[in-house]
Amino acid sequence: MATATATIDLNAIKQNWQKLRSMSRNDTAAVVKANAYGLGIKQVAKALYDEGARLFFVATAEEGAELRSILGKIPEIYIFSGHMVGDTELIRNYNLIPLINSIEQLSRQSQLLKEKKFGVQLDTGMNRLGIEPMEWETVKEFTLSLNPVLIMSHLACADEPGHKMNTTQLNTFRTLTDKINIKKSLAATGGILLGPEYHFDLTRPGIGIYGCSPMKNCLPVLKIEIPVIQIRDIKSGETVGYGNTWTSTSKKRIATISAGYADGIFRVVGQRTKLYFKEIGCPIVGRISMDLIGVDITRLNMDPDKLELINSLQTIDKIAEGAGTIGYEFLTSLGHRYNRKYTSETV
Amino acid sequence: MATATATIDLNAIKQNWQKLRSMSRNDTAAVVKANAYGLGIKQVAKALYDEGARLFFVATAEEGAELRSILGKIPEIYIFSGHMVGDTELIRNYNLIPLINSIEQLSRQSQLLKEKKFGVQLDTGMNRLGIEPMEWETVKEFTLSLNPVLIMSHLACADEPGHKMNTTQLNTFRTLTDKINIKKSLAATGGILLGPEYHFDLTRPGIGIYGCSPMKNCLPVLKIEIPVIQIRDIKSGETVGYGNTWTSTSKKRIATISAGYADGIFRVVGQRTKLYFKEIGCPIVGRISMDLIGVDITRLNMDPDKLELINSLQTIDKIAEGAGTIGYEFLTSLGHRYNRKYTSETV
Repeated sequence: MATATATIDLNAIKQNWQKLRSMSRNDTAAVVKANAYGLGIKQVAKALYDEGARLFFVATAEEGAELRSILGKIPEIYIFSGHMVGDTELIRNYNLIPLINSIEQLSRQSQLLKEKKFGVQLDTGMNRLGIEPMEWETVKEFTLSLNPVLIMSHLACADEPGHKMNTTQLNTFRTLTDKINIKKSLAATGGILLGPEYHFDLTRPGIGIYGCSPMKNCLPVLKIEIPVIQIRDIKSGETVGYGNTWTSTSKKRIATISAGYADGIFRVVGQRTKLYFKEIGCPIVGRISMDLIGVDITRLNMDPDKLELINSLQTIDKIAEGAGTIGYEFLTSLGHRYNRKYTSETV
Repeated sequence: MATATATIDLNAIKQNWQKLRSMSRNDTAAVVKANAYGLGIKQVAKALYDEGARLFFVATAEEGAELRSILGKIPEIYIFSGHMVGDTELIRNYNLIPLINSIEQLSRQSQLLKEKKFGVQLDTGMNRLGIEPMEWETVKEFTLSLNPVLIMSHLACADEPGHKMNTTQLNTFRTLTDKINIKKSLAATGGILLGPEYHFDLTRPGIGIYGCSPMKNCLPVLKIEIPVIQIRDIKSGETVGYGNTWTSTSKKRIATISAGYADGIFRVVGQRTKLYFKEIGCPIVGRISMDLIGVDITRLNMDPDKLELINSLQTIDKIAEGAGTIGYEFLTSLGHRYNRKYTSETV
């Protein structure tokens, strides 16, 4: 079998969510957009629901409809992209809660889904999603007359606790929502860590549930094991892989493993990344191919039948850092080809 | 609707394959591994089959089993990773042809699938997959007595026509297969372009079918359109997106579009990449988020409801180059979230 295995620890996902919940001042939702950050919305959302989560956030109405089919009638499902052209039927039929981002969306919601639940997203400086402060002045009274169930905003720099943007956005959010007696939400994982003044009535952790930075002391949720297809000895001066980019300077033993950039192992991670046999790290050699990677296993005193890419020694954050990106991107780039195993045992 | 659309032109895929076929001296296969380079094996393989392709290559036995279920009994399906532990049932039940890469695999094939079809992959210097020249000396006679249906190897530097590795591998392949009267294959897309002496009995184009470099004068196969969620005006000094990495130096009009790195738009493509409204390119501003991207649409004299990421003005190769990678990786990283439309009309 040449298919790599991705083992996802649902118990770790549950415990990470419980930890974020225990740190939050009031209610705690769960963000499961982008297929639960690449790990599988069906299994992950069910596990979080079993653990007590009743409020979920996704990116699009299509994701919301899928989530409703998975979890049934009870949970509240919020849609970050709000109410777009073409979303009306999905929002109505799947009982979704759009987070209204603009006057255009407000108009659409009030005309097409009058008396249906909705929330409001305000822009407090990130300039990405949300009604602008000046627009809010204009539509606040009308919006509030429609009884939104949530007012939220999103922090641009919560991963950097000392960034002045955090207090700027906090103060703006306070000003915009002052004296409004509706459930409020500002913090995702980074915002939870900034402290209780950022928590308001509801926190919305995402990445922390999945065991990545900026969350600290969380449990790893993923292990990736890749089968070895074959092993060969090479001499000094021989090259490995496309473009002859790597030349051996001594006798080496090289394993070819069965995964590549089609499995989300970015070409750019290159030789900064290791494959592990137990606690021994073996460096990648040569270019990463679509389905294959060369690994220098000279250090091993036996021939492994598989090697580990993600484990406790090489975390998602570490491999992402080696690729010049963040754990979020590594997670959402895992391909469709893994044999995915869901377990409640420690990975 | 906040879901981006990926339109795949099956007619272009067919024509690109026909072009590669017309350039090939003898038979022409089609490589459809990694979900047909991310574009959808079900639709792509069927289109190529309808066009006359009868030999297909995939990476793993699992991919081969899926392809057999799609295409039925007639085509030959070759497995690059060969015959691995655990593959025997799949190879037998789905009538797959493993490309034997090692003495270990040869032993497995001869013991467990005696008298079943197989091919041989030889390593001619890439040190990735294939039986080594010295090993081949040892097992050649035994292997040939088992009547393999194909002997193949793979070029490491075919994208660089002047690279001396090409002639080295060509000569090695000739030496290793001299006087062997079995169907031979050395060239993928790059090898086809190197000229007829590289073609032998069967070429195996992959990336050229999908309209990317190193293939020249091929048809584009993909268009990506992304909905605009909202549009806002910002002042000089305002920031957009995570980490406040982009600050406006003048009044700007910013669109937030509904796709991000979860859709395979690498974070690193950043501001080198544009979104197009007709022929007008609008640069990305700020960090790419998981589901959202900010775009400077100040140049437009109207508010678009969608923008194009991939089209004839910004090809797969161009966006990949901006991300420091190759078209292959962009294709195989397209996420699961697109609304995929298959058409026979020009994209």
